[in-house]
Amino acid sequence: MSASATIAQTPAPPYYAVIFTSLRTDSDNGYGVTADRMVEIAQTMPGYLGVESARDGLGITVCYWQTLDHIAAWKAQAEHDLAQKMGRETWYQAYHLRVAKVERAYGFARPE
Amino acid sequence: MSASATIAQTPAPPYYAVIFTSLRTDSDNGYGVTADRMVEIAQTMPGYLGVESARDGLGITVCYWQTLDHIAAWKAQAEHDLAQKMGRETWYQAYHLRVAKVERAYGFARPE
Repeated sequence: MSASATIAQTPAPPYYAVIFTSLRTDSDNGYGVTADRMVEIAQTMPGYLGVESARDGLGITVCYWQTLDHIAAWKAQAEHDLAQKMGRETWYQAYHLRVAKVERAYGFARPE
Repeated sequence: MSASATIAQTPAPPYYAVIFTSLRTDSDNGYGVTADRMVEIAQTMPGYLGVESARDGLGITVCYWQTLDHIAAWKAQAEHDLAQKMGRETWYQAYHLRVAKVERAYGFARPE
């Protein structure tokens, strides 16, 4: 599985989640390569805490960050800004982006 | 597409998101039927705003609610409580649940 096909190991709340839900067009045009690249870059950004991603028709990517300022810096990152433009021009039929403050969290793991 | 394979039409923030990320076991044992039933019941609960769901290896379901009290009522709903127990006993290898307050949101839709 890729890094984005695992449950993110996030710290105790509070922290922030960016929930990005999308429907793709039929156009590939570099989408997969760019999506992988965006995860690579995000992981190098200050305040990055993790990412989770799945798609079957609907795509959901949740990226976790320490603060709203870290999210703003990631949104403005040059390569990411270009990818967002490509997303609106080419890759996405529609999307919705939500910024949310994680207040509570808990996990479960089956005993080995 | 099913109701859960569309982008949820949520009101202006603030509202709450429950982000449920999971890895399944190999056991089906009624999982699909129960998952569909849980969405059906959730839609009848007070404060329900919408749901988005995708799985490819990792599963991500985001359910939207008006308030924390509405989330607590849904968590305690009898059939849902039973499903949560089945989840821990049978269906999930691991999961992480995060309750987050949506502070900002915006959408994009390709012009027709």
